[in-house]
Amino acid sequence: MAILVRAGAKALDSWRPLLETALPGRDFRFFPELGDPAAIDIALVWQPEPGLLSGLPKLELIVCLGAGVDAIIRDPSFPRHLPVVRLVDPYMTAAMSEYVVFQVLCLHRQGLVYSAQQRRSEWREHPQKNAGERPVGILGFGTLGQDAGKKLKALGFDVAGWSRSAKNVPCIPTYAGAAGLDAILARSEILVSLLPLTRDTDGLLNARTLARLPRGAAIVNVGRGGTLIEADLLAALDSGQLSAAVLDVFHTEPLPPDHPFWRHPRIVVTPHIAADTHPATAIAAVVEAIREFEAGLPLTNRIDLDRGY
Amino acid sequence: MAILVRAGAKALDSWRPLLETALPGRDFRFFPELGDPAAIDIALVWQPEPGLLSGLPKLELIVCLGAGVDAIIRDPSFPRHLPVVRLVDPYMTAAMSEYVVFQVLCLHRQGLVYSAQQRRSEWREHPQKNAGERPVGILGFGTLGQDAGKKLKALGFDVAGWSRSAKNVPCIPTYAGAAGLDAILARSEILVSLLPLTRDTDGLLNARTLARLPRGAAIVNVGRGGTLIEADLLAALDSGQLSAAVLDVFHTEPLPPDHPFWRHPRIVVTPHIAADTHPATAIAAVVEAIREFEAGLPLTNRIDLDRGY
Repeated sequence: MAILVRAGAKALDSWRPLLETALPGRDFRFFPELGDPAAIDIALVWQPEPGLLSGLPKLELIVCLGAGVDAIIRDPSFPRHLPVVRLVDPYMTAAMSEYVVFQVLCLHRQGLVYSAQQRRSEWREHPQKNAGERPVGILGFGTLGQDAGKKLKALGFDVAGWSRSAKNVPCIPTYAGAAGLDAILARSEILVSLLPLTRDTDGLLNARTLARLPRGAAIVNVGRGGTLIEADLLAALDSGQLSAAVLDVFHTEPLPPDHPFWRHPRIVVTPHIAADTHPATAIAAVVEAIREFEAGLPLTNRIDLDRGY
Repeated sequence: MAILVRAGAKALDSWRPLLETALPGRDFRFFPELGDPAAIDIALVWQPEPGLLSGLPKLELIVCLGAGVDAIIRDPSFPRHLPVVRLVDPYMTAAMSEYVVFQVLCLHRQGLVYSAQQRRSEWREHPQKNAGERPVGILGFGTLGQDAGKKLKALGFDVAGWSRSAKNVPCIPTYAGAAGLDAILARSEILVSLLPLTRDTDGLLNARTLARLPRGAAIVNVGRGGTLIEADLLAALDSGQLSAAVLDVFHTEPLPPDHPFWRHPRIVVTPHIAADTHPATAIAAVVEAIREFEAGLPLTNRIDLDRGY
């Protein structure tokens, strides 16, 4: 049986030698060279074309070559009976936490204010509190959220986490469900979203939820663009309800050149770079998923299709 | 006997009620209202006028209301026989580490590059390594340097520290003296200077030392402006030897509006805000110094005038 590998051209160049070394003698099919679709039982994919997976009649396992599986499962023809494993790689987790800590510190230390002053050659100091006086809330408190939360906590921030189902994390208060959401919003001067895109999180950051934040709060979105209603964010910035937003993910990526986010003085735009897939380390998780599958073991990072992540 | 308090007008407003509460019944003289200079035995000062301290004939203790004592001891008339205590306040230490971690992450994650792209509405991703692959060197490895070093280490950075005299810090390699300086420079892709301004550190960051850094390195100066030769920094940026610099301290503060640093695309200027004195917490260290002095005990944070810090 064969293993299909589908990723961007540059990523394929990285995956190819790693896979051939880690799994010698296996029959790899690097997209778009599929050969006989009926020979493929395992697919390693990132943002596959709609219909690609449903066109593989003998497919038994899908491994997502990234943290978010939304692009796979939103395909209406996606074969829902098959197991899907998402990539959990400590290297990517570390990268995500670097980005989150960087942007939270930037907001906390008024980085945008001082950058604007530099452009005006203006030497002016502003009142500054310590991290211990800054409540930070993290939406999405799984592997990525907890790692970022612990690192923010180590810097002194007053961190709390929110997730769909209740979690117990040492030294960090956690909230869950709909009631918990309002509670964490009410306390978060800086709100970080690491939410996956699911039925439940689609548009979760909207006029109503943003209004629950303390006035002047800031947000960091590193989850998925679809979780944020873009017009509601602009309105909240205009009204002063929000002071700033750092966005790494968008409804449309690349963000179109004429999109108002690019030129907004209180929005930081980065091109979906918070935590790239890093084949050299992620290969271990891919190999592990294939080994578990072939040994008939439970799949460690199998997603729950009903939950959506 | 009386206690002179000399600080900026805004800082005095903060210090006054804190001191009067913490040391009730004491005879405070808030600058410029000195009263009889011969009544003053203790001076709590930030950037005192040259001659102010030498004009107090009964002075016995000087407490600096900030981390750096250079502004006190560079006064040629400064009474060198008197003990000088510098302020060590965990709140200020935490603030300094926040700033250092923020700016190191910004350099590591190419913050300046992505900001410039945002101004051009340009969506372009750049190769990114993890903190573990980024060697960071910290010059000045006392209380502040070690705290920042430990926090950078917790984020995964490959941290090393350098100080005048050898230090032993768990899990962080340290260097000392002239030979150690060249060694830490050679390994530091990001160099953070927390050096005090002394005879030995005056102009320490110059064409020769900057040339020892790996090509394309970046620096963060949060120590004192006088430790950096400004023209040598500009030349190193022009030649590509350095990729960027983050500067919070300058030879002349406020930085003059026509100074080339303000508009340099690869220099970040902040107005000496890394770690402000925070009277509400620093009061504890001031009171402790006075208590130690009056009880005839060794002064915990007494500076060594020969060393200069």
